[in-house]
Amino acid sequence: MDVIELRSDNAAGVAPEIVEAIAAANTGTAIAYGADDLTERLHDVVREVFEHDGARVFPVTSGTAANALALSAIVPPWGAVLCHETAHILNSEGGATSLLGGGAVMRGVAGDDFLMSPDSLRRALDSVGWGDPHYSQPTALSFTQPTDRGTIYSVDQIAALTEIARERGMRSHLDGARLANALVSLGCTPAEMTWKAGIDVVSLGATKNGGLSAEAIVVFDDHASDELVYRTKRSGHVTSKMRYQSAQLIAYLTDDLWRRLATNSNDRMRELAAGLAEIDGVELLNRPDVNMLFVRLADEHIDRLEAAGLLFYRMGPGVIRLVTNWSTTPGEIERALTAFRS
Amino acid sequence: MDVIELRSDNAAGVAPEIVEAIAAANTGTAIAYGADDLTERLHDVVREVFEHDGARVFPVTSGTAANALALSAIVPPWGAVLCHETAHILNSEGGATSLLGGGAVMRGVAGDDFLMSPDSLRRALDSVGWGDPHYSQPTALSFTQPTDRGTIYSVDQIAALTEIARERGMRSHLDGARLANALVSLGCTPAEMTWKAGIDVVSLGATKNGGLSAEAIVVFDDHASDELVYRTKRSGHVTSKMRYQSAQLIAYLTDDLWRRLATNSNDRMRELAAGLAEIDGVELLNRPDVNMLFVRLADEHIDRLEAAGLLFYRMGPGVIRLVTNWSTTPGEIERALTAFRS
Amino acid sequence: MDVIELRSDNAAGVAPEIVEAIAAANTGTAIAYGADDLTERLHDVVREVFEHDGARVFPVTSGTAANALALSAIVPPWGAVLCHETAHILNSEGGATSLLGGGAVMRGVAGDDFLMSPDSLRRALDSVGWGDPHYSQPTALSFTQPTDRGTIYSVDQIAALTEIARERGMRSHLDGARLANALVSLGCTPAEMTWKAGIDVVSLGATKNGGLSAEAIVVFDDHASDELVYRTKRSGHVTSKMRYQSAQLIAYLTDDLWRRLATNSNDRMRELAAGLAEIDGVELLNRPDVNMLFVRLADEHIDRLEAAGLLFYRMGPGVIRLVTNWSTTPGEIERALTAFRS
Amino acid sequence: MDVIELRSDNAAGVAPEIVEAIAAANTGTAIAYGADDLTERLHDVVREVFEHDGARVFPVTSGTAANALALSAIVPPWGAVLCHETAHILNSEGGATSLLGGGAVMRGVAGDDFLMSPDSLRRALDSVGWGDPHYSQPTALSFTQPTDRGTIYSVDQIAALTEIARERGMRSHLDGARLANALVSLGCTPAEMTWKAGIDVVSLGATKNGGLSAEAIVVFDDHASDELVYRTKRSGHVTSKMRYQSAQLIAYLTDDLWRRLATNSNDRMRELAAGLAEIDGVELLNRPDVNMLFVRLADEHIDRLEAAGLLFYRMGPGVIRLVTNWSTTPGEIERALTAFRS
Repeated sequence: MDVIELRSDNAAGVAPEIVEAIAAANTGTAIAYGADDLTERLHDVVREVFEHDGARVFPVTSGTAANALALSAIVPPWGAVLCHETAHILNSEGGATSLLGGGAVMRGVAGDDFLMSPDSLRRALDSVGWGDPHYSQPTALSFTQPTDRGTIYSVDQIAALTEIARERGMRSHLDGARLANALVSLGCTPAEMTWKAGIDVVSLGATKNGGLSAEAIVVFDDHASDELVYRTKRSGHVTSKMRYQSAQLIAYLTDDLWRRLATNSNDRMRELAAGLAEIDGVELLNRPDVNMLFVRLADEHIDRLEAAGLLFYRMGPGVIRLVTNWSTTPGEIERALTAFRS
Repeated sequence: MDVIELRSDNAAGVAPEIVEAIAAANTGTAIAYGADDLTERLHDVVREVFEHDGARVFPVTSGTAANALALSAIVPPWGAVLCHETAHILNSEGGATSLLGGGAVMRGVAGDDFLMSPDSLRRALDSVGWGDPHYSQPTALSFTQPTDRGTIYSVDQIAALTEIARERGMRSHLDGARLANALVSLGCTPAEMTWKAGIDVVSLGATKNGGLSAEAIVVFDDHASDELVYRTKRSGHVTSKMRYQSAQLIAYLTDDLWRRLATNSNDRMRELAAGLAEIDGVELLNRPDVNMLFVRLADEHIDRLEAAGLLFYRMGPGVIRLVTNWSTTPGEIERALTAFRS
Repeated sequence: MDVIELRSDNAAGVAPEIVEAIAAANTGTAIAYGADDLTERLHDVVREVFEHDGARVFPVTSGTAANALALSAIVPPWGAVLCHETAHILNSEGGATSLLGGGAVMRGVAGDDFLMSPDSLRRALDSVGWGDPHYSQPTALSFTQPTDRGTIYSVDQIAALTEIARERGMRSHLDGARLANALVSLGCTPAEMTWKAGIDVVSLGATKNGGLSAEAIVVFDDHASDELVYRTKRSGHVTSKMRYQSAQLIAYLTDDLWRRLATNSNDRMRELAAGLAEIDGVELLNRPDVNMLFVRLADEHIDRLEAAGLLFYRMGPGVIRLVTNWSTTPGEIERALTAFRS
Repeated sequence: MDVIELRSDNAAGVAPEIVEAIAAANTGTAIAYGADDLTERLHDVVREVFEHDGARVFPVTSGTAANALALSAIVPPWGAVLCHETAHILNSEGGATSLLGGGAVMRGVAGDDFLMSPDSLRRALDSVGWGDPHYSQPTALSFTQPTDRGTIYSVDQIAALTEIARERGMRSHLDGARLANALVSLGCTPAEMTWKAGIDVVSLGATKNGGLSAEAIVVFDDHASDELVYRTKRSGHVTSKMRYQSAQLIAYLTDDLWRRLATNSNDRMRELAAGLAEIDGVELLNRPDVNMLFVRLADEHIDRLEAAGLLFYRMGPGVIRLVTNWSTTPGEIERALTAFRS
């Protein structure tokens, strides 16, 4: 029985274009630790794609590394990172930001749709004793874009929140483990979603969207970049053969590959959601803005879907998570819908 | 002009067998974060190769990560790691062990040939106030095998030093960034060089010997393994698509690939050293036990070698470092010798 | 105008019995760093007072140090400390537990009256992925007794919560910055409130109740004690002339001094609350179980109280905090009530 | 038998003037955590004594806390602190600087008489890969003044070494656990020995010289001071009743009390050394510049001294350490010499 992969975009393989880029990089020798030509070119590519001459990029091999390191460069050890109370950095990274941030803490901010709301953020900031060392001082704001629940901030929402943060002297980070999916969904440019909206540091994920352990920290702040030179190394996050990460990221950001791959996963999800919306007994719990859908249906139906070869996560009684990826085919969606219908 | 790469084995490419293994892993989907079939199989391969049923393996993407994490699992935050005063972990990893070890410190031990000597180790241990919190308590001993200067410990030397450490309740780590080169040189088994000689945790490097950012921590101690489940994640060292690391490591350890690749680099170095020994004005500073040689010669000759396309590192006035790798060819060695001779 | 101190018990002076104990200790010389006779005797006193032969005590000079160190000894760096969402360790210690705990995180648990409820605790524990390194693993439960809002857990409530925690392998800490006030209020023994109710480590505060920077960590768990030997030193929390801390703590725990001092502050608060309850326009926001009361009244009245020489904290519009201490006199309470009445 | 205390100045009691200052502070109430009047006055006293309008002072309760916190404010987590290879911070503080410095490392510098030499310092700095994250970046230089072996830097020596450090962008710290003894010995002003000689942060010890757990960090650099507001609190080093520390430090620095107390211990040591120099079989191992002397004599004589009631430390076979303190009397010195002579 052929299974249909809807558990996670992390479960997908590596896109052929990325495989080719790795193979193309595998000629001759190259100096190690990021001093190679490909990594240098990656800086140029990032500057062009993000339309920012001062941008610098640090390839790493996991999203947790990208997030915790990015935050460590904009939060002092006595600082607090504010993020939505359901944020990945707060709940699913084993406390990495506290380790790499030298003991910095994270604070959850409330908000509907798994998005921080301006009011909640203001309330959180107003309850702090600023300058009083009894209080961890909020110095960074972190967005998960899209969220782990498949919702997205509009560019205006990001700008409004970073503006509130900036008034308090805070800097802002965007956890873009699925950045391309959000970009495609919003139809905006990378610059619009990031530095033009007040973001200082970005975790740019490629792994979930066709890469091979290829993530990057994109930084628009020179001071943070200067720190990351040391912070990446001392946490073991500078690969010696960095050219193979850089080659992937160059391919990913070139000729819109990242958008094309993300477009596929978003489109497949929209088809899936459209189909599911017409099936009795299936309730959609979020808008299919990107490639992730939470669905409520009877547990006996869930069991049957599993038996039919659908791979997905159970979030609790009667709720499952479905995630499409860059390689999901229209045929797979059709077969999945058939399974749901029966 | 064709250059000859003698700077670092990190500068070499990825071996064809490893590339094939990555390609072979790139079919279908697989669950993320190390719960995949390939990573499970890697555990079996490691147990077989190291002849230890309780061994567990944690793939990571840099040698610094492997070392600092391995040590963090056997040293408390108030502990000290003892290593040779020229050890890589002490001098070339940006303090990673102190970060990931929660503030643990490192102490250099003297010894000829860049190897810790039993006498120096005993003297270091005798100067400690055991149980007195004014003193960082030595709890781990770390070997660099081979050393960064191309020398190696014999199996007996390792066993003698770990025995001294064990009497003090310490555990032992082996930094095997070039483990295969040492194995081939000594003609011993992985078990003999590690747990049979008193080693508890190993940093097993594959990157310098043909891998693509493929390193691993091999652990013979269940308590350390249990900790590493959390320590790897919270430092950002669990890749989501771990199967691509595991596939490389399986290929590396299968059918003696690691030995064959290391045999090539060691053999090429022996040829190079044999040739250089016969050239006037060239002084060999170490025995070519593995794939690294330090050589003294006149600076004007060094300049001419560089002009002739030899790539190497200058260690100071009149001293250069030469490193062969898995892909170095006999023809390259011959051309290098010709350049030296002229 | 004579002021009446109701801001904080931290603002009070040092009790005469404590001053005498310091003076008595100031004869002859004594070996440093806790190897002196008084510190040895303190261990015996603690064992007797807490009715626990294995108890060990570590004098420190701040409550934050006591809490963060106590917790660091029972939580691994990848662990989470669960506490009420209003707990002092979470909100008012500048992230000390994350620093001294090597990056451990804190998680708030809900509950009425500023007390964790069994249901909330169970819900928090049920939402964790146990053994999954994406989740910070809850390993310690921390009580603030009494809470920063003047409420207290009964002995049964403590026992019920530690029992839930123990089922998950967690250990328990009690932040007793005002432990004596709770003891007197509940009329129980130190043993009943601590180890007999499942507490492994206690922060025993004396400073707020008449001491001079005299706090202590009381430990009923040998493994935690062994760690604290090193953890106290490396965080700078071993005073060289420890005998002056130990002398205070001996005096404090001898002849019920701690209970007598706390009885005074609790009794004065009960008188104050009883008087306030009869005044129109003054609303008591908590029961005067210990020495702290939150009161709602019109802001113009608050201004007038201040003008009349009452010292207190404003918690927000229309709410003030009143705290009595070991030296508060019945006359001061009477004068305070007169001010409120007018 | 009356003993004679020559083990450590830490073993001495609290000077009467300090006891009086504590008693005088124990009137009325005062706001906690350093916002009290005495702590404010302490800032003025420090500014006057150190002749520096921008100086700020942070009272703490141990020398280890003062050193590790002072250094944490001038060294980034990826930095290295350079100090003499026998320095207290490197060998006797349990790794506190690495903990509170977020993983910063310490590096020993050689030099005769337990003093760093300019040549050794330059060599250490020249061996660093500046800007290369493989190398912990030296960012702070730390002096122990006087050293743990009783030797002292001249003001010119300090200035020469800080100048070398400053050329590399480093800042400088002075561990003055016995600062007054050095001041008196050199006959210079506090300003001359510190900021005028290039020192940015000072650990000012009072405990060994008559205080009751009274140490302070004196800072001449605003950025470091701003950090210490948070760093002291989150490491548990802000006492709530800080006025009792501040009162001691004010008394200590007023009317030359610190100099008078140190003059006594230095003078007694000079007398002791002068007497010992005339005794056959007793070899002085250092000049009695301050209050500490290392002496070589036959082990059987050492045993007899102990039997005669002399308290001292044995440093190894045939070597003992003698330390005088603020309360050592000429009569005690005479009795000690009599014991040596017999």
